[in-house]
Amino acid sequence: VQRIPVPLAGAPYEVWVGAGALEQLPEMLARACPAARYAVIADSAVADLYGDRVRTLAGAVAPATLFTFPAGEANKTRERWRDVTDAMLTSNIGRDGAVVALGGGVTGDLAGFVAATYHRGIPYVQVPTTVLAMVDASVGGKTAVDTRHGKNLVGAFHQPRAVVADVGLLATLPDNHARAGLAEAVKHGAVADRAHFARIERSGAALLRHDVEALTEVIADSVRIKAGVVADDEKEHGRRAILNFGHTVAHALERVAGYALLHGEAVAIGMHVEARLGERLGITEPGTAAALERALIKLGLPVTQSDHAPEALVSAMIHDKKSRDGTVRFAFLKRLGQAAAGDDGSWTVAAPQDAVLRALEP
Amino acid sequence: VQRIPVPLAGAPYEVWVGAGALEQLPEMLARACPAARYAVIADSAVADLYGDRVRTLAGAVAPATLFTFPAGEANKTRERWRDVTDAMLTSNIGRDGAVVALGGGVTGDLAGFVAATYHRGIPYVQVPTTVLAMVDASVGGKTAVDTRHGKNLVGAFHQPRAVVADVGLLATLPDNHARAGLAEAVKHGAVADRAHFARIERSGAALLRHDVEALTEVIADSVRIKAGVVADDEKEHGRRAILNFGHTVAHALERVAGYALLHGEAVAIGMHVEARLGERLGITEPGTAAALERALIKLGLPVTQSDHAPEALVSAMIHDKKSRDGTVRFAFLKRLGQAAAGDDGSWTVAAPQDAVLRALEP
Repeated sequence: VQRIPVPLAGAPYEVWVGAGALEQLPEMLARACPAARYAVIADSAVADLYGDRVRTLAGAVAPATLFTFPAGEANKTRERWRDVTDAMLTSNIGRDGAVVALGGGVTGDLAGFVAATYHRGIPYVQVPTTVLAMVDASVGGKTAVDTRHGKNLVGAFHQPRAVVADVGLLATLPDNHARAGLAEAVKHGAVADRAHFARIERSGAALLRHDVEALTEVIADSVRIKAGVVADDEKEHGRRAILNFGHTVAHALERVAGYALLHGEAVAIGMHVEARLGERLGITEPGTAAALERALIKLGLPVTQSDHAPEALVSAMIHDKKSRDGTVRFAFLKRLGQAAAGDDGSWTVAAPQDAVLRALEP
Repeated sequence: VQRIPVPLAGAPYEVWVGAGALEQLPEMLARACPAARYAVIADSAVADLYGDRVRTLAGAVAPATLFTFPAGEANKTRERWRDVTDAMLTSNIGRDGAVVALGGGVTGDLAGFVAATYHRGIPYVQVPTTVLAMVDASVGGKTAVDTRHGKNLVGAFHQPRAVVADVGLLATLPDNHARAGLAEAVKHGAVADRAHFARIERSGAALLRHDVEALTEVIADSVRIKAGVVADDEKEHGRRAILNFGHTVAHALERVAGYALLHGEAVAIGMHVEARLGERLGITEPGTAAALERALIKLGLPVTQSDHAPEALVSAMIHDKKSRDGTVRFAFLKRLGQAAAGDDGSWTVAAPQDAVLRALEP
């Protein structure tokens, strides 16, 4: 089990990555997140698989109760946040309680937002059960719910006390979810570490057959890369914006597709589109989109979409929370392994609408 | 206009106190809280009085829109928080927007929680319009909404960028609200500054006739005292708990009375009850409750209640968020001007239920 530091100024913590890491949960809770009570929050599907086990492990440190909500991104809402909060209040969990967020990205975001706002904030740890949650949601402290206006529009920054990423739990993850999760790992390579990008492409076959060693390496390296970016810019005022590469398009796709696409699939398409757009605008080195395309296809990920009109996607982008006054901004690559800085010292660039429309054409 | 620093480690800010301070809002927004758009949030009653004026003042810096919600503590809920958030999203206010919270404690808490969670947190300033909000809510960064389980159970710490406390706005405040607000000023004196306590008692008559100079002095001193306590302990892990003096009983009273009492009235009763309880437990110097009683009565505030059975109040306390595992804890005075430290290094003390019941008898 590797212990990867996330060196945040106010609240440094560790991500424990490896097969069997879950068995160390009691040690980790006792050390990094002691509490009078634990609220283990999971969706109904993950609760069936791992709920009892995690409740028992947490229960070795302090009384632990399992709280569930219906599975699916459609439930990452203020209403489910309220329901979980009220169930915890009914159980008399106090300010000295803590949350164990057990599940994928939706659970991490929702349970994290419960922890961020329960009694004005109680500690929490994450036990991610998907590749996506391990490589992405485990670092950064972003919690949120969706609204009908878009994804993640309501939330808070709330750093976990620790994260246990047990690669063994991925055995129950459907193949399409495993592939989709790797899209964010590819992104970490694309924006900040070309060697990581190359490694993922090389290990493609092993990753797709759930090879525990290959997964552990890729996840641990992705966490390291993201930790470096986030530690520089905890509240996303500057360079952290590079992690939004691919996401302007991805969020628009998810909105228009009604979340029929997995997040990682949308990010894969988004990275390819935004690389093409960046090349056309002269920001991104030519050939970058093609290299991304090769790697993503090797991982079984989509790189184009033809279900939605470019105009509908642009309209969705204007409502994205990164939109400023109706302009759509993108985090572009300079080249593989390096993000592009904007002219104004920011890390995002406004793109003309016609260029965006052309890049979105299949 | 006095500018009082609130020296928080990460995010120091100033509270501007005085008659006419509101005219300096544009200068203050431009300096401390620049934004692409301003969302002025007020309840329906305050919007009628000051909504246009504040929107115009903010509008001198950037486009400003007024958002209102129905007046009253019964509206400090997740539903109204959602409504205001959705109205701002519909208006396309982005991450580069900021909130101006215009009103009393309810608005400060609700609008502050909107700002704390909108796009994972946008900046905000407070323009308090009640004595209570000026002396209390203006310092500390506590934002919250109520649930059926109790007050302030869901919220976040989110520090304002600045506060403009224009004592002139208090001219429209009903007398009972002005008196109730002074209860928190009395509390600041009681827990941390005996001279402040004595000054309030001495200025009682001037304060009750809304004398602008007397109000400015008391409010400015209260802000200074609270700023000192909060700067020591931003997230309420330690000494800041002394500000809960009177509040264990007050919150229980408010729950049981269905918020028919004003918060300051409940705090006045709560301080008197908790001082009596502290004396009986040998924690508080004898005579403290009597001295508090004299000062509170001089300010026209209640010191006892006979509408509710002690048992009902104790049951409500057990559900208070400061309750740990069913024990009820209090922040006691050692003597006037000084809080009592607990045995365990904390600033709260568990009290036996029978003593609490006796202290609650009228």
